[in-house]
Amino acid sequence: MTAASTLAASTALLTDQYELTMLASALRDGSADRQCAFEVFTRRLPDGRRYGVVGGLDRVLEAIENFRFGEAELEQLASAGVVGDSTLEWLADYRFRGDVDGYPEGEVYFPGSPLLSVRGTFAEAVVLETVVLSILNHDSAIAAAAARMASAANGRRLIEMGSRRTHEESAVASARVAYLAGFTATSNLEAGRRYGIPTAGTAAHAFTLLHDTERAAFESQVAMLGAGTTLLVDTYDITNGIALAIDVAGIGLGAIRIDSGDVGVLARQAREQLDSLGAFETKIVVSGDLDEHAIAALRAEPVDGYGVGTALVTGSGAPTSEMVYKLVEVDGRPVAKRSTHKTSRGGRKIAVRRHKPTGTAVEEAVYPAAAGPELGAHDRFLQIPLLRSGKRVDDLPSLEDNRQRLKDALVSLPWEGLKLSHGEPAIPTVFPEQ
Amino acid sequence: MTAASTLAASTALLTDQYELTMLASALRDGSADRQCAFEVFTRRLPDGRRYGVVGGLDRVLEAIENFRFGEAELEQLASAGVVGDSTLEWLADYRFRGDVDGYPEGEVYFPGSPLLSVRGTFAEAVVLETVVLSILNHDSAIAAAAARMASAANGRRLIEMGSRRTHEESAVASARVAYLAGFTATSNLEAGRRYGIPTAGTAAHAFTLLHDTERAAFESQVAMLGAGTTLLVDTYDITNGIALAIDVAGIGLGAIRIDSGDVGVLARQAREQLDSLGAFETKIVVSGDLDEHAIAALRAEPVDGYGVGTALVTGSGAPTSEMVYKLVEVDGRPVAKRSTHKTSRGGRKIAVRRHKPTGTAVEEAVYPAAAGPELGAHDRFLQIPLLRSGKRVDDLPSLEDNRQRLKDALVSLPWEGLKLSHGEPAIPTVFPEQ
Repeated sequence: MTAASTLAASTALLTDQYELTMLASALRDGSADRQCAFEVFTRRLPDGRRYGVVGGLDRVLEAIENFRFGEAELEQLASAGVVGDSTLEWLADYRFRGDVDGYPEGEVYFPGSPLLSVRGTFAEAVVLETVVLSILNHDSAIAAAAARMASAANGRRLIEMGSRRTHEESAVASARVAYLAGFTATSNLEAGRRYGIPTAGTAAHAFTLLHDTERAAFESQVAMLGAGTTLLVDTYDITNGIALAIDVAGIGLGAIRIDSGDVGVLARQAREQLDSLGAFETKIVVSGDLDEHAIAALRAEPVDGYGVGTALVTGSGAPTSEMVYKLVEVDGRPVAKRSTHKTSRGGRKIAVRRHKPTGTAVEEAVYPAAAGPELGAHDRFLQIPLLRSGKRVDDLPSLEDNRQRLKDALVSLPWEGLKLSHGEPAIPTVFPEQ
Repeated sequence: MTAASTLAASTALLTDQYELTMLASALRDGSADRQCAFEVFTRRLPDGRRYGVVGGLDRVLEAIENFRFGEAELEQLASAGVVGDSTLEWLADYRFRGDVDGYPEGEVYFPGSPLLSVRGTFAEAVVLETVVLSILNHDSAIAAAAARMASAANGRRLIEMGSRRTHEESAVASARVAYLAGFTATSNLEAGRRYGIPTAGTAAHAFTLLHDTERAAFESQVAMLGAGTTLLVDTYDITNGIALAIDVAGIGLGAIRIDSGDVGVLARQAREQLDSLGAFETKIVVSGDLDEHAIAALRAEPVDGYGVGTALVTGSGAPTSEMVYKLVEVDGRPVAKRSTHKTSRGGRKIAVRRHKPTGTAVEEAVYPAAAGPELGAHDRFLQIPLLRSGKRVDDLPSLEDNRQRLKDALVSLPWEGLKLSHGEPAIPTVFPEQ
């Protein structure tokens, strides 16, 4: 087994080379120790999306903790000539000792929301750019797609089964944020191990094809997994498959799954057939290229659960979140790139979400960190402390806490904000004191 | 450092649960030992694409070798109740002992190309489905996008810098297949360590903003990295930035980079300015939301290199490859799901690419494995042996070999096949004996 040596035990090289060449230059010219604030934000949401969802923050904290240069990392940098000896020595002692605040996972966000604030010396903060963005950009893209699907499913069961359509490690991270966003379970066993997420799965078409008859396959599965299992009925002929499934498992069969064809029509026919056989409690699960629109379109159909794959793990058209990690403050002085095309605001920022007395969100208000804005009775600060002097603060919210947070946040959006169609962000972002 | 414990040292749980429940049922009913052939193929290319590119095969072989159930994996399966004791015992001894053939990395493919053939008992082959597909679907999607970009760049330098826009491990895999497809270098340091790919990078806007003046930043960078470095000139004003860059580094400056604005117009102005300053050899590198179409549109401009990020790592609109892993043969008998919507052909297959005497490919001919088709002087078999009795065959092609393979394969396509616009596959796939 050599995978442990090929996967990165340290996160330190999950980094763009220019971070280390900047570090080397800054160490040499004395600017490396300047106190800096970097901020993660996004200039826009993916085309037509109404909100973003923060995903991956716990993984970010873990990646920062594991951002250490051991022998393998230093040797690579030396042999590739990326940086010289004095920088290598500095890196050998590196660990992040600064402060981090951010929007917790499951929080919704909008263009300009100050999602993460990383403060420390230039040297210690600049090197984290790539791995922080990799995790947040990926996981948040998947979380946002998953949240739209969960909205569309409206309480019906959602099973994440997209592992095969994305990088094997993205698959694990995707399963995690799908659960964050309200999915019921995942097919991915490693996500079960690593994050304690419920896993699910029974059989594929291969299992039916392996056997001499569909009956033999169904009998074997029911003998192994019990009548409460889900039988896949569309290998040959769905009507025959359903009849056979009930014949084998009885009317106590847990569910049937349909993975092909016009699943709306087929679900209606299946429900009628199951009811006519007396299998009133047998559920119908559909899968096969479902996205949030297909899920919504099936609302009127007798579907009890959805298996979602490709659309989830590819962010349903928006596979990344376009977050950036920008230097906004140097020794207390706001800095920003000058540009006609990209709006950049210097200075560290804090954010307040303002709400009507009814609890409906009305705006994302972003202030200079020193501003001390007043909170109305229904308003709240959006950032929470995450790291202090490089250590996690106590009692960070759990995955379950953040799952509830997203549910609550979505309820607070104006109703237009939950529409699946293209449109403006659900609430505007305002910068009252800039 | 805890990353080693959270990343999967074994690949065995990068697996959908249903593979193990199928295994458990098959072990119980006696069908687990049936000799099976599974095949990886795709029913279609992403919308309008002319060809696919096989990427990730070396990673697949490594994943199969590391597909072993250790204590952590077995404990998870037991505690989650996925399978029972007799299956756990079987898994504890598992390693893949079958045969694998496939299209090598860098080979182009078309709908229906039999990309991978996995043969062994049902039990040993079925469990590999998810991890095999995860790797091939991801890496091939990125490889195909990269190949289109390399075609468009037409020999100009291409630097992969998309790590921040995708999962941190997808980033490493993406850098690898970008290199396979003709990219010159990557910003990703871990890809340099793991795969020996050339890395590149000098400085971001943060480095200029950190310093009191742009001059101080440029002087520091040149002092550290030499005049051959690349200076980023668009933090404040590009014309001033270029003048300053040459003033600081001299006319021997390696390159300038422009990361914003209308890079075509700006490149032309920059070339004129550099030439007027006598910096005739200073190269111009552009970056910022480039895809293959933008790269092609810049062909007429004086651009020497491209930095490509988001579009590469998201597959430029096609982030996955839609490959499937299907059971096609059981104990020598062809099997296939019956379906009106999906074409499935049973039986193990072999593939021949047929060419004109000029070397131009004309068709992908797919035969039953037993057929023994005749090869014309310019034709070739597309699959190569990869594993025999679970062991790698000797002298598998290297990443450099496969890089050349893709170059050669693209040259062999009919010229329409290299067009970036939407269209039909470059050559048809035919099934002469079915």
